[in-house]
Amino acid sequence: MKTLTEKYMETRQRTEHLCEALQVEDYTPQSAVFTSPPKWHIAHTTWFFEEMILKKHLPNYTVFDADFGFLFNSYYNSIGERIERHNRGLLTRPKLERVYDFRAHVDKAMIRLLESSPNEDINSLTILGINHEQQHQELLLTDIKYTLSKNPLYPKLYDSNFVSHYNSKKGWLNIDEGIYRIGHDNHSFSFDNELGVHRVFLESFEISQALVTCGEFMEFMADGGYKKAEYWLDEGWFWIQENHITQPLYWKQEDGKWFQYTLSGLEPIDKSTILTHISFYEASAYAQWKGLRLPTEFEWEVASNQLDWGTHWEWTNSAYLPYPKFKTAVGAVGEYNGKFMINQMVLRGASSATAPDHSRHTYRNFFHPQSQWQFSGIRLAK
Amino acid sequence: MKTLTEKYMETRQRTEHLCEALQVEDYTPQSAVFTSPPKWHIAHTTWFFEEMILKKHLPNYTVFDADFGFLFNSYYNSIGERIERHNRGLLTRPKLERVYDFRAHVDKAMIRLLESSPNEDINSLTILGINHEQQHQELLLTDIKYTLSKNPLYPKLYDSNFVSHYNSKKGWLNIDEGIYRIGHDNHSFSFDNELGVHRVFLESFEISQALVTCGEFMEFMADGGYKKAEYWLDEGWFWIQENHITQPLYWKQEDGKWFQYTLSGLEPIDKSTILTHISFYEASAYAQWKGLRLPTEFEWEVASNQLDWGTHWEWTNSAYLPYPKFKTAVGAVGEYNGKFMINQMVLRGASSATAPDHSRHTYRNFFHPQSQWQFSGIRLAK
Amino acid sequence: MKTLTEKYMETRQRTEHLCEALQVEDYTPQSAVFTSPPKWHIAHTTWFFEEMILKKHLPNYTVFDADFGFLFNSYYNSIGERIERHNRGLLTRPKLERVYDFRAHVDKAMIRLLESSPNEDINSLTILGINHEQQHQELLLTDIKYTLSKNPLYPKLYDSNFVSHYNSKKGWLNIDEGIYRIGHDNHSFSFDNELGVHRVFLESFEISQALVTCGEFMEFMADGGYKKAEYWLDEGWFWIQENHITQPLYWKQEDGKWFQYTLSGLEPIDKSTILTHISFYEASAYAQWKGLRLPTEFEWEVASNQLDWGTHWEWTNSAYLPYPKFKTAVGAVGEYNGKFMINQMVLRGASSATAPDHSRHTYRNFFHPQSQWQFSGIRLAK
Amino acid sequence: MKTLTEKYMETRQRTEHLCEALQVEDYTPQSAVFTSPPKWHIAHTTWFFEEMILKKHLPNYTVFDADFGFLFNSYYNSIGERIERHNRGLLTRPKLERVYDFRAHVDKAMIRLLESSPNEDINSLTILGINHEQQHQELLLTDIKYTLSKNPLYPKLYDSNFVSHYNSKKGWLNIDEGIYRIGHDNHSFSFDNELGVHRVFLESFEISQALVTCGEFMEFMADGGYKKAEYWLDEGWFWIQENHITQPLYWKQEDGKWFQYTLSGLEPIDKSTILTHISFYEASAYAQWKGLRLPTEFEWEVASNQLDWGTHWEWTNSAYLPYPKFKTAVGAVGEYNGKFMINQMVLRGASSATAPDHSRHTYRNFFHPQSQWQFSGIRLAK
Repeated sequence: MKTLTEKYMETRQRTEHLCEALQVEDYTPQSAVFTSPPKWHIAHTTWFFEEMILKKHLPNYTVFDADFGFLFNSYYNSIGERIERHNRGLLTRPKLERVYDFRAHVDKAMIRLLESSPNEDINSLTILGINHEQQHQELLLTDIKYTLSKNPLYPKLYDSNFVSHYNSKKGWLNIDEGIYRIGHDNHSFSFDNELGVHRVFLESFEISQALVTCGEFMEFMADGGYKKAEYWLDEGWFWIQENHITQPLYWKQEDGKWFQYTLSGLEPIDKSTILTHISFYEASAYAQWKGLRLPTEFEWEVASNQLDWGTHWEWTNSAYLPYPKFKTAVGAVGEYNGKFMINQMVLRGASSATAPDHSRHTYRNFFHPQSQWQFSGIRLAK
Repeated sequence: MKTLTEKYMETRQRTEHLCEALQVEDYTPQSAVFTSPPKWHIAHTTWFFEEMILKKHLPNYTVFDADFGFLFNSYYNSIGERIERHNRGLLTRPKLERVYDFRAHVDKAMIRLLESSPNEDINSLTILGINHEQQHQELLLTDIKYTLSKNPLYPKLYDSNFVSHYNSKKGWLNIDEGIYRIGHDNHSFSFDNELGVHRVFLESFEISQALVTCGEFMEFMADGGYKKAEYWLDEGWFWIQENHITQPLYWKQEDGKWFQYTLSGLEPIDKSTILTHISFYEASAYAQWKGLRLPTEFEWEVASNQLDWGTHWEWTNSAYLPYPKFKTAVGAVGEYNGKFMINQMVLRGASSATAPDHSRHTYRNFFHPQSQWQFSGIRLAK
Repeated sequence: MKTLTEKYMETRQRTEHLCEALQVEDYTPQSAVFTSPPKWHIAHTTWFFEEMILKKHLPNYTVFDADFGFLFNSYYNSIGERIERHNRGLLTRPKLERVYDFRAHVDKAMIRLLESSPNEDINSLTILGINHEQQHQELLLTDIKYTLSKNPLYPKLYDSNFVSHYNSKKGWLNIDEGIYRIGHDNHSFSFDNELGVHRVFLESFEISQALVTCGEFMEFMADGGYKKAEYWLDEGWFWIQENHITQPLYWKQEDGKWFQYTLSGLEPIDKSTILTHISFYEASAYAQWKGLRLPTEFEWEVASNQLDWGTHWEWTNSAYLPYPKFKTAVGAVGEYNGKFMINQMVLRGASSATAPDHSRHTYRNFFHPQSQWQFSGIRLAK
Repeated sequence: MKTLTEKYMETRQRTEHLCEALQVEDYTPQSAVFTSPPKWHIAHTTWFFEEMILKKHLPNYTVFDADFGFLFNSYYNSIGERIERHNRGLLTRPKLERVYDFRAHVDKAMIRLLESSPNEDINSLTILGINHEQQHQELLLTDIKYTLSKNPLYPKLYDSNFVSHYNSKKGWLNIDEGIYRIGHDNHSFSFDNELGVHRVFLESFEISQALVTCGEFMEFMADGGYKKAEYWLDEGWFWIQENHITQPLYWKQEDGKWFQYTLSGLEPIDKSTILTHISFYEASAYAQWKGLRLPTEFEWEVASNQLDWGTHWEWTNSAYLPYPKFKTAVGAVGEYNGKFMINQMVLRGASSATAPDHSRHTYRNFFHPQSQWQFSGIRLAK
């Protein structure tokens, strides 16, 4: 079994490995208020270790650069001022090299700390930091994809396009009514929003073994799906009107054929692949059109061990809310999850962009219903 | 027991009774995108009877004015074009008198229909129309309050201020864990969003017998409640920053004393009265400050028969989502509820502005988390 | 010759005469940030006499209502707080009757003052107040037209449509180069922005005897005028894109025929009538399409005694800027003109909505280049 | 005297010389809709030569990359689609190196063309291209300053701060009334907006020999200049309220001392240096506070040969409008100036950031009245 030091280093190296395909120019700009630049991701995840662990727990630790706290704090109000979220893309300085120096500086200190038989607190904060960085690895991929998609050159970043996935199963899975246990038992790592095993009563339901494919979604489009208010939540309808949305993000029609921008460039759409980059609004409208519905996050969790999942985040019809015994942790770490529990919907599963060892069936991901830039898909229920 | 005709007339007359305090000038302007003018309320509720019932079910019914469909449709996409929501306040014509003529025309026809031994369909649509109008009676009060509050003259509309309510009970009520039945059994009228009795498992919990008072909320304010990010949901914090919110809606400090605008004019705040006009964001922040939480709508429903409720809508920590077997009705009536099931929070109970006979413990009211203009209050749980 | 008292009363009565066609409901709502409700116009013009004259110059004058200063001040920062411009339409109170009482109260006092052999200061402030009210008479007409135009019923207010005007002259007028005197000589009333006769050198130019007709503008439209960037100022092009403008304000095509909303209802467009409700951006684009240009305000003033003018305000290509010796008057009256001398273009002439005796060839009207709701037209030059 | 080829190369090299202080990371991000990234500047100026000259005039010229037309066109609508202005900062690709290759490719071709005894058309387009690039050299400096100013690290780019300038003269210069010739005689290069020598009559006036200093402006601030509406144009007052502006751009107070961000980092403000980065609104308010005014562009041009100018662009009180015989050039080049003649004010002179050999007393620079990021200053008149 891997030591914590090994896990730490593996995660840190994976981030840098993901960045190998980037050019220096790619690291800085920010393409939307909801995305962050790669340089920010790699610095912020490093800052997390420095701020939450090293400054408090490593004797004689020298802060790499006092300004970085201001520059690379994300949303931790309790730690002090931070740069406005929409200005992250203006940090042309520090230059990239110096951010990598920051990473090396922190890594060296972290390893020193981890090899000094640290206490339980340090260990669990380190595991939190690793999971935090894994989350940012996925965001790094979805954010850079969003940025590059704005470039008329359709740049290719990787050999893998991250989107060619097929369903291996079909048909409906039946689940009986009953009381089920939901949530994480805290015997291993989880985020605080999963904690608190509790009972939920579920009526019987059926859930699809397969995710919706691009071809199936094209049928919805061909049937005027984006033009008929009856399928849409009211705010979803307003959203597609306001933003002139008539197709999934990254899709583009040329000479009657559909293409999509992927991390390996612009590619023709294979109808039998699983649909992705879909917002909750679109998922909900599709389900309505089908006369079906999205599962709740509880239904999903109960059914999950009989499902194939992991290539796409799956929208549920559950709002992101606290579990019965949810407690906010004390201090900055407590800002991790609880304060976002409003106006967001839960996604379950994982995607092809999710870091290895970062998935579990109790994991609660969450985004606003209009979010499209994650590798999200649709699973139906009834 | 009252006949349906009697109930119909009673509701229609109550609307007009509420309007007696209005001057002609008060009927037209719209003070916010989320409010509607009185003229629009009294015409729209009338249009509902004409459009949903009379046009289809009363032979030889003559539409009062073909233009009114366009003018007074609210959000029924399936019925055709409608005036933009934020332009409702520009309908200076038809003049008020003509809208009252419209009411009389429709009332005459409705009574003719109702006295002709109508079928079940007509009866249930009429009951829906009555309940619809009752909802608009409450909105009429909250909307006109919002409009008049923008007037530096602080106009008085009624003798009652609608806000002087006191708690009759104190302390905590304990509820055991268990499976509970939630929802309306459909043996009498309900809205579709309450339908489908289903089981919910609840962990044991405690719920406050009293609602939060103005005086208690002043303590929160005195402790810097509006200035400390730690108590707020992230979007709530953003909302108070953006809108410079430092106190409840309608509150105003003069020479160190607190006043509030009410429907009977500007009045000093009695600390022991129940707090009202509070947004979900403020309710959530207050609970966080107290180290407590808001109940879920299921907890509320289960506890409701042991609670005093009815003077204030009570924010729950439940998002407005469909019940397990929720089905959208066919046609325009189906747009009543389902399409709003996103980004809103459930309020339970009723308020002093709610129409008589319009309350039940399964009722699900819903508003966006920033909504302040309803007579909403805070009940805590733990 | 009329006495000042007669002139005062004539103006005051004309305002009320214009309002006779209004229903109570029409007086309150505000349809855009740049328009004001009729009730506000009739109160604000009255407030001007009270604030600028009566309070200072009539001994023992009793202010009608101390709140009205706050409610009906427009943009005089030096006089104190005022209601936000976009909230003028929410003043359902004071009721209309009371505003008319305010008018009567002020009229009575003004007449008493004017009949007491007032000093020069009072006389000239009264003349200013009369001219101020005449300006608001025109705005009252253009603002109510804008409000009613939002009503799908196309209400008719007057028998006259205010738009059926024909050119009486054709061809080009030649003006020689030379030094010309521009501005008002101050021997009679003028606004401060016209004052200061000064010399301007003009190169020789030609100016059209006729204004552009609706038919001529239809040719521009038929030639793709609204679709070709080359004719438009950059910000004009952005404006029509952003606002989806493809035709003049109030125009509407039905079954291939053009109609326009007028103060006497929706009417078919007579191609030979003079085009109106045109923005500077559209005027400029039309001139560019014709290979011609708009005159400067100096050219217009010099040519004016040989032109037929008075039915339409005529856009010039002059920005609204101070004349060489422009001096801001001391106090609130000084806020009348000077502080608006940025980002606006000068219109010369007068329109069919202009009050009688309110026109002169030195008059400088001014609006933002996107303004369409005045009775504005196009005269070309080369 | 320099050959055209020499001038061409000198300009091209100066651009690259200015960029030597930049790090790769600095080249891409865009800090505001009105600024452009360095990479865009250096590519766009190159594209100008390719698009306007090489494609038409150099036989067998090979376009470097067909995509670059789309990427680096600025506002030439007639040339086809272009990337949205606010998305210029997302062009992480092409990478910087490739943009420099583009420059080299075009330079090689331009030199080949210029050494082949080109015709007059090519020569004048080349001179236009040189001047165009010189304009972008200044924008490159002001834009990168704006971007770096958003960085809490206050990066230093150059040894010169570009802002330490002192007045060499004091007092007032008197100019007599008379007819003056204005505009460029076309015997050497000028932009089309300067062309057409024409006569202007000026009343006598006085103009300050010195520009306003930082210390003088501090007096305005100390006297509540930013807090008193009476000094401000109405839209200027709105602008400072809306944007919470209480001091010049780049100024920052620490412990009672004033500092400003400069291209050589954060520096204390020397009161006797000339004020810069001032908007027209602030310039106008300062003049009003002083009881003086800004000169017109005609007054400035007439006085210019007796003034010291060239360190700061000087706001005039003239709107940017066409000269009497202004003609738009045919084709894309015609979009250079004319279409911006609305809502902008003229600045005269030049600044320390202006390219050498790019200044003349007929030069008409123009910006919106709220623009602060140019090296602009205040000269008073009376």
